[in-house]
Amino acid sequence: MNVTLLTDYGLGDEFAGVLHGVIAGICPRCRVIDLTHGIPRHSVRRAALVLRNALPYTPAGVHVAVVDPEVGSERRAIAVECQDGRLLVGPDNGVLSLAWRRFGGVVEAIDVSRSPHRLEPVSATFHGRDIFAPVAAALARGAPLAEAGGRVDPAELVAIELPAPSVDDDSLTAHALLVDRFGNVALDAAHEDVAGSGLALGRAVEVTVAKTGSRHDAVFARSFADVPAGALLLYEDAYRTLALAVNRGDVAALLGVAPDDAVRLAPR
Amino acid sequence: MNVTLLTDYGLGDEFAGVLHGVIAGICPRCRVIDLTHGIPRHSVRRAALVLRNALPYTPAGVHVAVVDPEVGSERRAIAVECQDGRLLVGPDNGVLSLAWRRFGGVVEAIDVSRSPHRLEPVSATFHGRDIFAPVAAALARGAPLAEAGGRVDPAELVAIELPAPSVDDDSLTAHALLVDRFGNVALDAAHEDVAGSGLALGRAVEVTVAKTGSRHDAVFARSFADVPAGALLLYEDAYRTLALAVNRGDVAALLGVAPDDAVRLAPR
Amino acid sequence: MNVTLLTDYGLGDEFAGVLHGVIAGICPRCRVIDLTHGIPRHSVRRAALVLRNALPYTPAGVHVAVVDPEVGSERRAIAVECQDGRLLVGPDNGVLSLAWRRFGGVVEAIDVSRSPHRLEPVSATFHGRDIFAPVAAALARGAPLAEAGGRVDPAELVAIELPAPSVDDDSLTAHALLVDRFGNVALDAAHEDVAGSGLALGRAVEVTVAKTGSRHDAVFARSFADVPAGALLLYEDAYRTLALAVNRGDVAALLGVAPDDAVRLAPR
Repeated sequence: MNVTLLTDYGLGDEFAGVLHGVIAGICPRCRVIDLTHGIPRHSVRRAALVLRNALPYTPAGVHVAVVDPEVGSERRAIAVECQDGRLLVGPDNGVLSLAWRRFGGVVEAIDVSRSPHRLEPVSATFHGRDIFAPVAAALARGAPLAEAGGRVDPAELVAIELPAPSVDDDSLTAHALLVDRFGNVALDAAHEDVAGSGLALGRAVEVTVAKTGSRHDAVFARSFADVPAGALLLYEDAYRTLALAVNRGDVAALLGVAPDDAVRLAPR
Repeated sequence: MNVTLLTDYGLGDEFAGVLHGVIAGICPRCRVIDLTHGIPRHSVRRAALVLRNALPYTPAGVHVAVVDPEVGSERRAIAVECQDGRLLVGPDNGVLSLAWRRFGGVVEAIDVSRSPHRLEPVSATFHGRDIFAPVAAALARGAPLAEAGGRVDPAELVAIELPAPSVDDDSLTAHALLVDRFGNVALDAAHEDVAGSGLALGRAVEVTVAKTGSRHDAVFARSFADVPAGALLLYEDAYRTLALAVNRGDVAALLGVAPDDAVRLAPR
Repeated sequence: MNVTLLTDYGLGDEFAGVLHGVIAGICPRCRVIDLTHGIPRHSVRRAALVLRNALPYTPAGVHVAVVDPEVGSERRAIAVECQDGRLLVGPDNGVLSLAWRRFGGVVEAIDVSRSPHRLEPVSATFHGRDIFAPVAAALARGAPLAEAGGRVDPAELVAIELPAPSVDDDSLTAHALLVDRFGNVALDAAHEDVAGSGLALGRAVEVTVAKTGSRHDAVFARSFADVPAGALLLYEDAYRTLALAVNRGDVAALLGVAPDDAVRLAPR
């Protein structure tokens, strides 16, 4: 069974390599895939979104996410089974929650803070090595989830709440979810939300930033190549969510938009 | 069969990890080797040179290179078989061309833009995930190349043309190919080109930059350790091409040399 | 058998990827684990400390470390077997020495500079590719160590000497070993050294920097979360060595401490 890793450890230190070492020692035959170790430090929400986006493209297995600003405190360490059989392992701070929703919700949740699979002595600062990696490797090797710790009511787990888009007859109001390193802004609206909003591919769009009231002209285009350099476009990104960009520019800076800000999209 | 990956995706996002996920889903037993994901964004030529240099040190397999500034346009996506049996997969923009020349040329070329192996729906912006990785994984699993898409005349493929060195009785004129992050400059001349030029290991060399006429004294040395700090040397680099460097310095800055610039090397 | 890699090559170039390629060609079934390629360039001592810290968490195998400022000179290339059976491969500049001490010392040492396993022609600048990776892969495939080159007296190998902590009735004097990217300072004292020093968990500590005489108040805490932001703490880090930190701050800058500097820790 495959194990995937997603952390904010970076690759400049040995931390990610040590996770590989621990897993190889426990489950010598499993494949370990690094989704990324480049999550900005302590960005739980970004990690949750990236995990949700990436997992549909990886085979079902054990999926570890460690972005854990409260390591050493009393926050729980958890392993959960999703409706579709995937196992998710990480701190109980919401980092896994968007992924389990994508995969049908949690059917079983286990508190692994004192798991029999953890490496003793457990350090106060490196639970990736001492708890999450060994628990994931044991599960990948076939250890039953129910024996990895004590059962938790799934309703008690910490979940991230995202804003929701709203559609009326002549517009779609969405929110900024993720700003990538080029300044492109992924919204919380998907292809399906466009129906009924009046927006149509190839047509002009008026973009209004709710908090400032500033308005901008855009085009609902298929890709960057469809608009001139410097032009604003609304498009469906590679994860089938709507996004805003400036071709060869930085739309987040242009609009002054940060995560959670509302943006109204209306046909013109 | 092994799959190698070379991209400009970086490791800060999940893009390279998603390629691993896609390949693991299609070809669970193949080994995936990251040659690098650190090609500067959109540097097709640099990627082509790095691929050509690195592949002789990796076992024959399926070799993916994705540096693809025209993704979403009508540029072809291709998979080609080299004379020596290696399979190369990537956009038809020249990124594969230096490697196929190194391996004896193309014996069969397939347009995989609409390959039966691609992931539907194909996004407009992430063909690495939707076309190149799944096609490579299918080939690595044993799918016949001819069934991966429609045949293309190899003569129609886009190839990168590099300048060629010229030798006369008393000098060698070469061109800058690659400037690495230390400012060392790899030239388009190989060990063999030295014969007849009058250049000899251990001897002084006069380096003339063609575009400015500036002249510098160098030594044809075996390695950096053979000259004092700050001294200019001509040497054979790890890929057996001639290169210029300043020991603990930046020769590209010193000479004002950029890729394609001509440099005349004469014995003194 | 697993092969682990630790280098200062970075991931921006293809160098680390080429090591994977070479190993896959020689030992197609072995797993290769990247501990890190992010060691600061030429930092032999840092690499030696990271290797010593990380290896106890990886299964025994062949462990390569290449931080090699003298590549191309007459420094030896070595492969050694530790008391516990682990094999270490790298330049004979001390980079392996802290790891072999951790694993019981060297029982057999071989000079692999002219190993039958190396790739010919050996370049002057890329021994990772031409010597260390192919020797490691041959050993991982089962080649006998004694046939990888000529025997060397283990007493002749280059070893890194670290300062040692000293304890008296009312204090512990330790030295800075490693400063990480957050400015946290790992000391050369372990949990065991605390006994007899008067230091106790939860108690106040006076930290005196020997070279400047500057004094600071700290707490001997279990983790960062136990002290307020901006407060100085002494704690046991994830490798069970004592360390100094400022919660959400940079203790190396605050104290003006660099590697090897002595620090006196006394109960208050």
